[in-house]
Formats: sequence, C-alpha cells, structure tokens
Amino acid sequence: MSILAIDFGGTRTRAAWFSSDLRLLARAETATLAHEAQEAVITRVLATARQVVPAGQTPRAVGICAPGPQAYTGLILHAPTLPGWHKVPLAQRVSAAFNAPAYMENDANLAALAEYHQGAARGANPAVYLTVSTGIGGGAIINGELFTGWRGLAIEPGHLKFPLPDGQIVSLEALASGTAIGRAARDRLAGTGVPSALRSLPAVDGKAVGEAAQRGDALALEVIHEAGRWLGLGLVSVIHLFNPQVIVIGGSVALLGDLIFNPARQVIADYVTDPAFNDPSLLRVAQLGDDVCLIGAALYAEGKTPS
Amino acid sequence: MSILAIDFGGTRTRAAWFSSDLRLLARAETATLAHEAQEAVITRVLATARQVVPAGQTPRAVGICAPGPQAYTGLILHAPTLPGWHKVPLAQRVSAAFNAPAYMENDANLAALAEYHQGAARGANPAVYLTVSTGIGGGAIINGELFTGWRGLAIEPGHLKFPLPDGQIVSLEALASGTAIGRAARDRLAGTGVPSALRSLPAVDGKAVGEAAQRGDALALEVIHEAGRWLGLGLVSVIHLFNPQVIVIGGSVALLGDLIFNPARQVIADYVTDPAFNDPSLLRVAQLGDDVCLIGAALYAEGKTPS
Repeated sequence: MSILAIDFGGTRTRAAWFSSDLRLLARAETATLAHEAQEAVITRVLATARQVVPAGQTPRAVGICAPGPQAYTGLILHAPTLPGWHKVPLAQRVSAAFNAPAYMENDANLAALAEYHQGAARGANPAVYLTVSTGIGGGAIINGELFTGWRGLAIEPGHLKFPLPDGQIVSLEALASGTAIGRAARDRLAGTGVPSALRSLPAVDGKAVGEAAQRGDALALEVIHEAGRWLGLGLVSVIHLFNPQVIVIGGSVALLGDLIFNPARQVIADYVTDPAFNDPSLLRVAQLGDDVCLIGAALYAEGKTPS
Repeated sequence: MSILAIDFGGTRTRAAWFSSDLRLLARAETATLAHEAQEAVITRVLATARQVVPAGQTPRAVGICAPGPQAYTGLILHAPTLPGWHKVPLAQRVSAAFNAPAYMENDANLAALAEYHQGAARGANPAVYLTVSTGIGGGAIINGELFTGWRGLAIEPGHLKFPLPDGQIVSLEALASGTAIGRAARDRLAGTGVPSALRSLPAVDGKAVGEAAQRGDALALEVIHEAGRWLGLGLVSVIHLFNPQVIVIGGSVALLGDLIFNPARQVIADYVTDPAFNDPSLLRVAQLGDDVCLIGAALYAEGKTPS
C-alpha cells in the first residue's frame, strides 16, 4: 500500500503520493498563506493532499514534515515561521481526514533522513545534514536511525554560539544564514562608500546578495565569504563532536556553491585537530532539491508502519 | 568468569579484577614512568595487571583504557601524554600475556560508559561525559551504546573552537582546562599588580590556582570564573547538537565544584535557545572517581564477550 507525504512549510505546502517501494507518483503544491485563519490553512493543506490521492485509495500511512523542533509530538508549536500556531494538532487532523496513521517530524530531521536514504549521504554513518536558508537547521542519522536527542531537540546548529570581538555572543544563524547575509550586506552598504550593484536595489535580502555575488559584485562576495567562514567554524564544532562520515548542506544558501563552501572548507582544514576528521568527501551539497522533505516524510511514515 | 581491567594513563597505571557481575574485587596501581623505554613500561603494565589476577585464574576478557582518540584500534598512537609511542600494539601484548581477548578504548569514552552504567548518568539518553583536567576529553552514550563516530574520533569537546577578541581562534581546551587555568593565572600575575597568594609560589599551575580559589584568593577566583564561562559556552554547543538528558563532568577541574560549575550554568541558562534544553538536573558531577576508567574498561570488555 502507498504512502501519502505532506510538506507543511511556512511559505509553501506540498503533497506527494508514493508507491509502496517509495517512488514518487504524484505531486501537488500550494501557497501556505500562513497569515490566514488556522482553519482555512488546515483546510487548504488537506485539499492539497487530497489532490495526490488516487480515487478510492487510502494511504497505508501519512508522513508530515513541519517546522519547529517539536513537530514529532504531532503538534505545531514553537515554529518561527508559523508564529500564531500553538499546540495545533495537525497530525491528528491529517490522520482523521485520510483514515490512516499520521507521523509528523521536523523538516530538517526528515531532510536528513531523505539525503541519507536517497541523496548525498547515502549509507554514511554518522550522516549530518544542515539546511542553510532563512534560518539554519539540522538533522543527523546515526546507525541508520534518525537521532533526535532526549526531547527531540537535537541538531540545532543554528544555535551554536560564538563570541564577537565586541563581547556579544551570537548564534551561527545570525552569522551565516540567508537572513544574516542580507543584514550584513545592508550594514556594509550603510557603513561604507564601497561601490556595489546592490545600491541600486529597492531592498537587499540574502537572495539579492547571492545573485550579486554570482555576477561578481565585490561587496556581495565579501559578505558571502565571511558567512562561509562562520559556517565553517560551526562545522568545526559539528565535526569534533560527531566525527561524521558525511555532512550534507542544503537550503537556498547552499545553492551559492563554492562561493559559500570554499571559505567553509578552508576554515575546516585550518581548524580540525587531525586531518582524519576531514575526509575530502566530507562536505557535500544536498541532492534532493525541493522534494527533500516529501521524500523524508514518506521514508519516515514507511519506517513507522509494517507493510 | 571474571574480567581484568587495565587503566593505562600517561601518569598512573591501574589494574583491577572484576567478578562476572562486575564487582571490583582487587586493585593495583603504579606510576607509568612514560619517559622510560617502551618495553620497560609495557613490562610494568603487565606486572601490575598480574598482581590482581588470582592464582590459577584466566580472565574471560581484558578491557584496557588508554589515552588518544584511536585507542579502539588496539594501538597506542596520537596520545599527547605518551608522545614517543607510535603504533604500539598494547592490546595484542596484553591479550598474549593473559591468554584472553583484550579490548582497548579511549579513556574518556570508557569513563562515559562507566558513568552511564554505574555513575551520575545512569540510564540517561543521550548521556554526554566531559573530563576537564590537563586537557578536555569526552564521550557519549546514545541508546545505551558508546557513540564513536565514523573513525572512532567523536566527542572531542576540547577541540571546539572559539574566536577571541583579538581575532585568534582557539580551542576550548586552551580556555577551560587545568592547563589553561594555570596559564591564565600566570598571565594575570605578570600583567597586573593585583595582590594574590599565588605570587608567593615558586610555580603556578591549575592545581595551585584551584587551591588558592578555594581559600578565597580573588585573582584565582576570577581566573576560574572565566574558565567556567568558557566551559559553559562549549556546553551550549554540545547541548544544541545532542540535546543530552545528562552531561557528566569529571576530571580534576570538576573537583572545584560550584566555583567552576556556577559560571558554566549561568552561561548555559543565558544562551540555550529554549529552556527545554536545560533541565535542572542536566549538569552533574562525576561519581566514580579514580576507578572510573577501570569500571569503564570492565564494562566494555564484558559487553564484547559472551558470558
């Protein structure tokens, strides 16, 4: 029997229908419109999912990918991209709508599971996944199993903390995410007279900085280089604690490729205590693109239910 | 059948005989004298171990605790406290001498195993152990099993890296170990005219600073407070990545108690992203004292062999 997967994000909601051997057979997508009334949003999620379920069929199980470290409880809570949502029993609503068991987990955790089974971390032990996008999240697979820690909160690399020269202690997320890249560029534009194509834009965010960097804009390149160095320093912590075989980096910032990876690689090479920690194939780009959470949700639901 | 345990350290070598239900029945100890010829040192290790083996008995297995992240290979290599030792097959020598299988692992890993089974982290999942002494080492137990990472190098919290205000990037070990505490005190004594009982000592090391702090010496207290804050910042990384149920701190610096723990606790409380990461009983002092590695080695050997 088949698996239904739902990727419920702050911006987009996706759904897919998977065969019993986990091939993706049908896909649907809609805007989440998270600012609307909760009931309207949930109705839209269920409608999107119904689009992919073949007439007359019931899924064996439903996997749901959702933001927030405590998604595993089946409730939406503490999700920064869904600020008005508190203890909303999304998994229960989905389960009732599709008459099937529903299993919900954090998006970065399920992305880790997907990259481990079908992507860039296939078979690696341990496999660590980082998503670098608006924020920074993560997941890890140890001995083939999702590692979630005591209360399901493990692998939050965005909250690694570093002291700045002025004495402030800040999160990696505030130094290396897309949001941080946008802010750093705006600070430089305001603080210096350095010429930059970014000056002609009405608004400068991480995406604009990335595009300018890819066209060779010096200020944008410098900002991304600096973010890459911080990312590398965060990875040095991950490496010395987990000794991962593979670290996969996904999320929109990873699309910058070597612009962000090269400075990260340099910091890793400079600061690991022994080259044995730093295999040439340690750091890899995510392979599964926008489907990563759907695939992870399907794998997760499949692992929870006997076939 | 019984288990022989050997704790081979850079300074002391200990051996113990354990009953089949892992009660410690006999113990022997000697100075390692690591500067002597390798063969003399190994002969002394074997002689110390023989002292605890009852006449006519053969151990079912031997557990060996040794320094260096790659002790699990059975070879001594890359151990900073045994600098002249390269690829010395200690496990093999022990196995031949006692006609029993011998299993060697890193000292901090085996201490983690011991505190998990019999000490301050009993039953915790995940359980993380840090030893803060001359250096800083660590181990973790996940789902009841020793977590060692890809190449056996996992949990090296001493190598977490932090940027200093001057731009240097340094290891936690250089900020919060006993060695770091001694050096920081010497720097302050040289750099300021602040009165301190330490000025009357011929040499100032971490131990002397700890003793002065316990007698209320202001300079010593300040140095230890600062080390405790760095330790706390390192633990913030461990906490956000592992979401441990319990973190046990052992080693000589942990004997300073609240002098080092309170500033660490404060930094953790200030910088964890959610109080759910920071249970009141998260941080605990090690319980097993000098026997910790012997107990860990016995548990490790016992787990490797059918009874």
